[in-house]
Amino acid sequence: MRPNLTIDPQRLWDTLMDTARIGGTSKGGIRRLTLSEEDRQVRDWFRTQCEALGCTVATDEVGTMFARREGRDPQALPIAMGSHLDTQPTGGKFDGVLGVLAGLEVLRTLHDMDYRTQAPIELINWTNEEGSRFSPAMLASGVFAGAFTREEAYAIRDRDGISFAEALEASGCRGTEPVGERRFAGFFELHIEQGPILEKEGVTIGAVTGVQGMRWYDVTVIGQDAHTGATPMYLRKNALLGAARIIDAVDAIAHAHAPDAVGTVGYLENRPNSRNVIPGEVFFGVDLRHRDEAVLDVMQAALEAELARILPPLGLEWRCSTLWSSPAVAFDPRLIDCVREGAAAAGYATRDMVSGAGHDAAYIARVAPTTMIFVPCAGGISHNEAESASFDDCAAGAQVLLEAVLAYDRKLAG
Amino acid sequence: MRPNLTIDPQRLWDTLMDTARIGGTSKGGIRRLTLSEEDRQVRDWFRTQCEALGCTVATDEVGTMFARREGRDPQALPIAMGSHLDTQPTGGKFDGVLGVLAGLEVLRTLHDMDYRTQAPIELINWTNEEGSRFSPAMLASGVFAGAFTREEAYAIRDRDGISFAEALEASGCRGTEPVGERRFAGFFELHIEQGPILEKEGVTIGAVTGVQGMRWYDVTVIGQDAHTGATPMYLRKNALLGAARIIDAVDAIAHAHAPDAVGTVGYLENRPNSRNVIPGEVFFGVDLRHRDEAVLDVMQAALEAELARILPPLGLEWRCSTLWSSPAVAFDPRLIDCVREGAAAAGYATRDMVSGAGHDAAYIARVAPTTMIFVPCAGGISHNEAESASFDDCAAGAQVLLEAVLAYDRKLAG
Repeated sequence: MRPNLTIDPQRLWDTLMDTARIGGTSKGGIRRLTLSEEDRQVRDWFRTQCEALGCTVATDEVGTMFARREGRDPQALPIAMGSHLDTQPTGGKFDGVLGVLAGLEVLRTLHDMDYRTQAPIELINWTNEEGSRFSPAMLASGVFAGAFTREEAYAIRDRDGISFAEALEASGCRGTEPVGERRFAGFFELHIEQGPILEKEGVTIGAVTGVQGMRWYDVTVIGQDAHTGATPMYLRKNALLGAARIIDAVDAIAHAHAPDAVGTVGYLENRPNSRNVIPGEVFFGVDLRHRDEAVLDVMQAALEAELARILPPLGLEWRCSTLWSSPAVAFDPRLIDCVREGAAAAGYATRDMVSGAGHDAAYIARVAPTTMIFVPCAGGISHNEAESASFDDCAAGAQVLLEAVLAYDRKLAG
Repeated sequence: MRPNLTIDPQRLWDTLMDTARIGGTSKGGIRRLTLSEEDRQVRDWFRTQCEALGCTVATDEVGTMFARREGRDPQALPIAMGSHLDTQPTGGKFDGVLGVLAGLEVLRTLHDMDYRTQAPIELINWTNEEGSRFSPAMLASGVFAGAFTREEAYAIRDRDGISFAEALEASGCRGTEPVGERRFAGFFELHIEQGPILEKEGVTIGAVTGVQGMRWYDVTVIGQDAHTGATPMYLRKNALLGAARIIDAVDAIAHAHAPDAVGTVGYLENRPNSRNVIPGEVFFGVDLRHRDEAVLDVMQAALEAELARILPPLGLEWRCSTLWSSPAVAFDPRLIDCVREGAAAAGYATRDMVSGAGHDAAYIARVAPTTMIFVPCAGGISHNEAESASFDDCAAGAQVLLEAVLAYDRKLAG
């Protein structure tokens, strides 16, 4: 029997807009760097709101907050929801925040209706998802899932030389619960898509089946600086010309593995970068992603082959190394089904999709059944003060989150 | 009758090395910015050396120095030699400096042998050729030739906000002679090639027949920032991909007008330049050069056609404007002949060539018969502390300068 519970769209929206003032920017975004004064403020607010609903709030040793609403079965593993309240330096109002505040709206709805789930429900605010202050991103969920040790995380320093451990201490955000001991029956993360597909296709809910595998490469193309006027074409070693052809090749490699592959050069340094000097060295980053690691292997081999094909005829040398990689993640089919069922119950169309970006859920999938719910964001824009999601889509996401949690609770209760 | 005059190679080399200490850098180059304390020091030294040879030294209102050695005919227009003693911020020991100090070696040789030319001989140190402190380059010769007014030059400010007029005053380098009133029978500028051709071909002397026409364009390619992971290939507007194809097209346009055309993208700004953001805007500078303005017109039309062909299918917009252009310059055939004859007399092979870089001579050609003499520089490298020219090539350049001046003096004398 499905309970007839409905979230309050206006309350959700007001909560999004009200809390957006904590670190709010003049351009309508949020600057709420991890463990900053603004982050501390929103954490205090979050704790107060959850406690007002009768939840207990625990904090682990890397600052992650867990608000727990008891269920009927005190022995059952909790069903978890959540995301993150930290933002990029010029971030938007929805990235991460929607997942936490929609979770709060779910708790409020359960509380208002005095509805008691079988399993406990937990709402999580993961520390330092963005990685803007302490790199890498998804730091606390990474420690939780065993991707990094607590000590590795503690030692990371921001640009001012302050370590993560020092910032946790100074902000009063360090808790006492050992990281990663908590267990979940499942974890649902609602998030804006950060891409244009749902908006383009007019679909409200993305049922996220996994996270793409991602590989980042550092490439340096080495030629010879020379005067643009005095060096004839046949005597040139133009590193930017070589880089340009590799940029084109990266695009072609992704197209060759359509529709799921993506490949991009986003970062490039041209040296010496002077109008009348033929570039002698170009450094750039290649980003290749696909849901299937075997396809990524093929794409990587193609990149290496293109470097060896394109650069020697131009008199250029190169170095190519893997900077970072993140394996493809497959989410839990039972939880994905709960999202599909929840969306159907709430009357929304869904589209299966693979997350192109990393999320806390990608790490948590290593230690608990996990999935994500995507809602559209305007123009696919995120990590930007112009980031925008509509009133209706935020409400839809929160309702589907509620429905999915309840569906899973019913299945667990068997 | 050709007088048997020979410059002193060791004295020339010692003078090059000794004066290189004025602003000398730890890496063997020179940092002697226009009207800096180092520039003032080398100017004082230059004046002393010229006066010791019986020359009179006049300075014009933009600081250009004219050392004059009288000839037998006080009514004859002088034959001028020279270049510049200012350098790039991390410049080499030869760019500009060789042309002035080889001219000094010519004066010293005439003085030692008590040889009196028919025409007066003048040795010139042009102010602010490099343009590193006060942009644009070739400022004083430009005012001399009427390309800029004196007032325009005076108003130019360095990065510290100091105007050219103020710097002339503060350094004590402003003279009283009105700019551009002086007339020459001809002007010879010896310079390192700043390109690799002479070294590559094993030729010692370049007989420079002119200066390439140069056109600089500003191009902005406009797409849409988006997440590299979450944006499928078919929904992208990747400005760096468009820029890459234009960089390749610029190279192809130059090759299509081989062997004289050159085309380069040397400067590029990628925005926002983040590893996981598809570039939304790329700004770059295109540098096209050819000795023939008509060919440059064709190359420019090809650039515009390639922008219109390549960018729309990628969903990209663009702006393209001409930032700066310098028309092709043809040097004076009589003076070029004197260089060829002088080189033959001194026993050196020559190669006709067109200067790919701008020089004071390019402006002076507007107001006086002018040519240049090139000598090889190692690897074609200049504007760099590693810039290098050999003892023998410096000596050859100075001897050919002497021979060319004497040949022209004989022709003028009829």
